[in-house]
Amino acid sequence: KDSYDITLLPGDGIGPEIMESAKSVLSALCDRCGFELNLREALIGGAAIDAVNDPFPDATLEACQSADSVLLSCIGGYKWDGNPRELRPETGLLKMRKSMGLFANLRPAKVLDQLIDASTLKREVVEGVDVMVVRELTGDVYFGAPKGIDTDADGKRVGYNNMIYSEGEIERIARVAGDVASKRNGKLCSVDKANVLDVSQLWRDVVTDVITDEFPDVDLSHMYVDNAAMQLIRWPKQFDTMVTGNIFGDILSDEASMLVGSLGMLPSASIGESGPGVFEPCHGSAPDIAGEDKANPLALILSAAMMLRYDLARGEEADILEAAVETVLDQGLRTADIKQEDDGCKLVGCIEMGKAVADVV
Amino acid sequence: KDSYDITLLPGDGIGPEIMESAKSVLSALCDRCGFELNLREALIGGAAIDAVNDPFPDATLEACQSADSVLLSCIGGYKWDGNPRELRPETGLLKMRKSMGLFANLRPAKVLDQLIDASTLKREVVEGVDVMVVRELTGDVYFGAPKGIDTDADGKRVGYNNMIYSEGEIERIARVAGDVASKRNGKLCSVDKANVLDVSQLWRDVVTDVITDEFPDVDLSHMYVDNAAMQLIRWPKQFDTMVTGNIFGDILSDEASMLVGSLGMLPSASIGESGPGVFEPCHGSAPDIAGEDKANPLALILSAAMMLRYDLARGEEADILEAAVETVLDQGLRTADIKQEDDGCKLVGCIEMGKAVADVV
Ligand SMILES: CC(C)[C@H](C(=O)O)[C@@H](O)C(=O)O
Ligand SMILES: CC(C)[C@H](C(=O)O)[C@@H](O)C(=O)O
Repeated sequence: KDSYDITLLPGDGIGPEIMESAKSVLSALCDRCGFELNLREALIGGAAIDAVNDPFPDATLEACQSADSVLLSCIGGYKWDGNPRELRPETGLLKMRKSMGLFANLRPAKVLDQLIDASTLKREVVEGVDVMVVRELTGDVYFGAPKGIDTDADGKRVGYNNMIYSEGEIERIARVAGDVASKRNGKLCSVDKANVLDVSQLWRDVVTDVITDEFPDVDLSHMYVDNAAMQLIRWPKQFDTMVTGNIFGDILSDEASMLVGSLGMLPSASIGESGPGVFEPCHGSAPDIAGEDKANPLALILSAAMMLRYDLARGEEADILEAAVETVLDQGLRTADIKQEDDGCKLVGCIEMGKAVADVV
Repeated sequence: KDSYDITLLPGDGIGPEIMESAKSVLSALCDRCGFELNLREALIGGAAIDAVNDPFPDATLEACQSADSVLLSCIGGYKWDGNPRELRPETGLLKMRKSMGLFANLRPAKVLDQLIDASTLKREVVEGVDVMVVRELTGDVYFGAPKGIDTDADGKRVGYNNMIYSEGEIERIARVAGDVASKRNGKLCSVDKANVLDVSQLWRDVVTDVITDEFPDVDLSHMYVDNAAMQLIRWPKQFDTMVTGNIFGDILSDEASMLVGSLGMLPSASIGESGPGVFEPCHGSAPDIAGEDKANPLALILSAAMMLRYDLARGEEADILEAAVETVLDQGLRTADIKQEDDGCKLVGCIEMGKAVADVV
């Protein structure tokens, strides 16, 4: 196969401008490597709320499910923050994950030598760090029932969300994590709060069973979430692959991303049992700099590389794209978020950064 | 009043030896300042399981409730890790918090100049950091019902714990946080996941109401928990007082403690509406070094200072104790956990460190 249907979701804030950069890079890559991407755009988040009053319209779901893969920029902004929950951009993201069955979120935090000084951690602590967080994405307290805010007879409110995992949900994410770990260096750390939570006790038992039975070569360890939050800062090199639930993964993957210094460099992949995955940067929509040609398109470009590797089985092209990103960094080009004072590098905008990558793929 | 009843809970691992150091320091302080502490010991954690098969026996509850205050070392160890939940040391800790109504946990993370190089973060990032995390301690997914592990007709299991907060629970922790913030620099950041969770939406609404109505001078902001986990590493000086729920507080307070470099320096206070509080270090029981005279007693000594300040209204004596700890650090004494290679400091054991503090109070 050398032609693929890709649905692009430009989203909000800096989303549309970084998507333009990614498009120019992908087009250069197609020319060089002789394959075709049929790009189609669809609405999500605030843009979709403004247009059709739904943060994840059915038409978008259809466009995503019928594609070979989906590339998403970012969503959200102050404008919609006061909306009721069903009309918030984040709700669209959650609907997308659930309706497309994207239960596994892969978030690599790899420290690039060129950007090592951007980290607030000491050089010797982050040098060579390469952590992959595998986060469960369609379960846990994010989607658990019952949930809500009730009012009792005295008019006092109580709010609740059920933190819940079924055996099957844990098994399938453990399999993804086992597979990822075995393709990396074979070390897997599962994170939970089994000393307090029943749901974590089940998590620990099921992960242990799946890895022991199906991935005998993977070296599995367990860590409590509070300790993991410390160890990520104390000595991140102890970690290779980590697997955890939705809410702990939300927190720990963002924490891990800070080892790298800038969210502007970090891609992610959300994948399901079958069907297209969604590839998106870890950063938000940065409404404060939207439209000013200041955004960093590299996380989205690296997300496109993950898309090539995981959904289109184009690992070689993914490598080319990732190498191109390193090349422009070696050339000394920096967007504002990764520019250090006195680093001798050249400050560039989003368009110029995209063009530079396109030039070297 | 110049005589107080104090219940000591030496606990497990390094607990008994650091408690001995703390006792010698408190005794020197009493001599110098002319007040009396009537010390009585009680069982908790693994030690209590071994002795009476209960991690928090009624006799201990009674000894705590009838005292003016409680000083706790630390609990837990490999030995009891395989026990059923009701016979685990942690369960004793949770029972203590709940039965004594200790709903507010104050965890300061203050970077001491003498130890700044012990942090894995860059000097300019952590210098002067002084964060106080106010963690709710008797609610949330820790104590929520329903909870458990059920098995369905097909023999498949499902595990769940309810993440739940009532309006009253949020109000009282918001009041503690408002009070703490107003006695510090008046800046309070409340952390939740209101973009996803109903319980967090209630949290945000109630915290906003309490602070706006009752603490008009406190400057309140809100942050999502994933972002807070990042910001604590990116630029910790933006924070003064933080307030959050039990599980987010468990994670974030441990993360914040890493800014300081060693858990061995960090005290905490757990307090209720009235009655005695419990004061304890943030570190664990370090079973691997127990009995070897290697433990750092300073976190427990600093916890005793918090006890003097919060429960015994002896702020002046608390200041003396805290100053004494800084003095021994200035003298260049270091236990192994805070010793840096080539720092020119003297490596000392637990006993010698305690004696040094006792000498200078
Ligand atoms: C926007 C929000 C709902 C989302 C999440 O919590 O999953 C985001 O933080 C993420 O990590 O993708
Ligand atoms: C031991 C454990 C139950 C406890 C908690 O999670 O509260 C500990 O991590 C703490 O922070 O005091």
